[in-house]
Amino acid sequence: MALVIQKYGGTSVANAERVKAVAKRVVERKRNGDNVVVVVSAPAGLTDELINKAKAISSKPDKRELDMLLCTGEQVSVALLAMAIKELGEKAISYNAHQVKIRTTNSHTNAQITEIDTKKIEAKLKNNHIVIVCGFQGINDIDDLTTLGRGGSDTTGVALGVALKADTVEIYTDVDGVYTADPRIVANPKKLEKISFDEMLELAGTGAKVLHSRSVELGYKYNVPIHLRSSFDESEGTIVCNKELIEEEKLITGISHKLGEALIIFEGISNTPKIASTVFNKISENGIFVEIITQGAGKGINTDLSFVTKNECFDEAILLAKELAQDIGVSNVKGIKNLSMISLVGNINKDKLGVLNKVLLILEEENVKPLILTATDLKISIVIEEIFLKKIINLLHKNLI
Amino acid sequence: MALVIQKYGGTSVANAERVKAVAKRVVERKRNGDNVVVVVSAPAGLTDELINKAKAISSKPDKRELDMLLCTGEQVSVALLAMAIKELGEKAISYNAHQVKIRTTNSHTNAQITEIDTKKIEAKLKNNHIVIVCGFQGINDIDDLTTLGRGGSDTTGVALGVALKADTVEIYTDVDGVYTADPRIVANPKKLEKISFDEMLELAGTGAKVLHSRSVELGYKYNVPIHLRSSFDESEGTIVCNKELIEEEKLITGISHKLGEALIIFEGISNTPKIASTVFNKISENGIFVEIITQGAGKGINTDLSFVTKNECFDEAILLAKELAQDIGVSNVKGIKNLSMISLVGNINKDKLGVLNKVLLILEEENVKPLILTATDLKISIVIEEIFLKKIINLLHKNLI
Repeated sequence: MALVIQKYGGTSVANAERVKAVAKRVVERKRNGDNVVVVVSAPAGLTDELINKAKAISSKPDKRELDMLLCTGEQVSVALLAMAIKELGEKAISYNAHQVKIRTTNSHTNAQITEIDTKKIEAKLKNNHIVIVCGFQGINDIDDLTTLGRGGSDTTGVALGVALKADTVEIYTDVDGVYTADPRIVANPKKLEKISFDEMLELAGTGAKVLHSRSVELGYKYNVPIHLRSSFDESEGTIVCNKELIEEEKLITGISHKLGEALIIFEGISNTPKIASTVFNKISENGIFVEIITQGAGKGINTDLSFVTKNECFDEAILLAKELAQDIGVSNVKGIKNLSMISLVGNINKDKLGVLNKVLLILEEENVKPLILTATDLKISIVIEEIFLKKIINLLHKNLI
Repeated sequence: MALVIQKYGGTSVANAERVKAVAKRVVERKRNGDNVVVVVSAPAGLTDELINKAKAISSKPDKRELDMLLCTGEQVSVALLAMAIKELGEKAISYNAHQVKIRTTNSHTNAQITEIDTKKIEAKLKNNHIVIVCGFQGINDIDDLTTLGRGGSDTTGVALGVALKADTVEIYTDVDGVYTADPRIVANPKKLEKISFDEMLELAGTGAKVLHSRSVELGYKYNVPIHLRSSFDESEGTIVCNKELIEEEKLITGISHKLGEALIIFEGISNTPKIASTVFNKISENGIFVEIITQGAGKGINTDLSFVTKNECFDEAILLAKELAQDIGVSNVKGIKNLSMISLVGNINKDKLGVLNKVLLILEEENVKPLILTATDLKISIVIEEIFLKKIINLLHKNLI
């Protein structure tokens, strides 16, 4: 008898019909002989509704109280799902973060799970219950409610998998697996049967929104495979697992992208660590998001320093950059909006220059200039104008995967 | 510095504007030098919305899970109110039943508070916080959430008053006090400045819906005065307190009424306890609500036995009564629907017969037959046809109060 953790997102429990469908699925799994622990998010839309209620009271709601408010969302889901499972004749019980002591760090709205008390869950499993646990939430050391940030329920699922030594963690979403590229923009991407934890982390970090990075890190650290599946069909999905379990190591596993990027370039900056650190201190003090930083390895004393941020930070970033330019004696500051970052993720280290060469040839042929280009062992990223994104990502996918 | 418990009902926190108004009121009280603990119900409408969600899943939702679901309502209120108070510049913190360990009995949807851990609340009060606690909810001895039944937040307020040894418990509602009769049906009723716990219990039990009986019992038992006030104005309201604190003992303090009553009469029933017990066992087994029971003190072996139930139980009750009549050899069973019960509450024992006489004279004059009449030391109740209610209750109020 295997122990399975199943996590269902908000769209899967958005209304009574969907809750009943999830209940049916969970009950089938149980009747097939597995022990099942279910983690559920708040019903789709409810969290936004609650945030709007808070915003109607305060433009910047107190974070502790916001967590107190938002945690009601998952509690609604677990109670309804438990009722639906009982309707189907199986024993079920729901738990919130207080009841199974999902301990977290103290950073409200962005906490990290530190411990879960599994006693109650294990006792109920032994007693043939399906156990349903609130995703996304925890309690700190003084029993205040905390939340885990975007995608936090995935993390709850994997953390429960770790704590309960589950055989597998299944994350059910509205996509049926990890694809070699985003099907909304690339023609005929392939669904991956398996992907390694570190590749998944790179994809998630560079724009693939299928799994929350922290949940992948947790699975990676404790070696708990994560099975990403669709809650709307029975297809097999993608297993995120240890590299050793993957038979065929691919040079490029997948291609991700991000939209709405913006670039700030300091031209002719004095090539000293002190100047660079002055720049980035100032940027970070002002809370401007920085995606990538590159500094040309100029031979002389002057070089270019660039960073990629988001469109929505652009106005503030360019203003700040111009102020900074005067302070540090930079001759010219340039800014470009509406860019995209494309990342090729895989075992690039097997042929880094070969891949880079192919990428550059495609860009050359299409007459698209890479504004930024970075390469590590696992990933090559290029930043180009957004108007070229669709063409380039399709060409890269066709030629490199 | 006094310690005040303020309880606000669902209509007082129905939307952002109202939450802000409550926050303002609480903050004013705090700035006037009192320590304030606030108990809040779920926003008006939310509990019904949650019940509908449960009903969409199951026609008879599991009670433990229903409690889990409903408890989210008050958690929404406390979080929003804490945000609103902080917006006004005061320190505030919200707590749910887990956090301040509001222990209850185990009967889901109708639990009773047994204990509250006041440590956290006291520490926060000392540290100048306004403390906001979820009404209506508790946890049983295995930390499952429970709810206290209708009007349960009033009980939470009084129970906190008892546990914290508060100077006063203020219950804010949409009425501004206890009246000598229901203003919607009686002309010019007077607002009572004070009323004793036992009179309030009698009024609440006989149709006055202003306060939950259990909260009054609790105030009575531990001698914590309850101040009933309007959340929409600054008027003084009514203080429910120990009899000793009431200067003027009134013969009749108030007149309450209930609508939609129905009467079942067994005529010519054998006057033995065994027969009566057979009747009431059967009635109770079938879950039929019984308001009043009277049995005529017949001199012979036969007498009449009647009980008052509600219109909605009438069909089932009359059917059952007819079955019973055959079993116990009763000659005739009658049923009358659409009745009202009027109760006069006060220190009736000071002149029981005098009051009764006045009541009967008024009925006589109006040619209204009392179908049932009962009198105790604190209360006289009559049951009449509902069409006469308005006229009779107004005459009683005019002549006796």
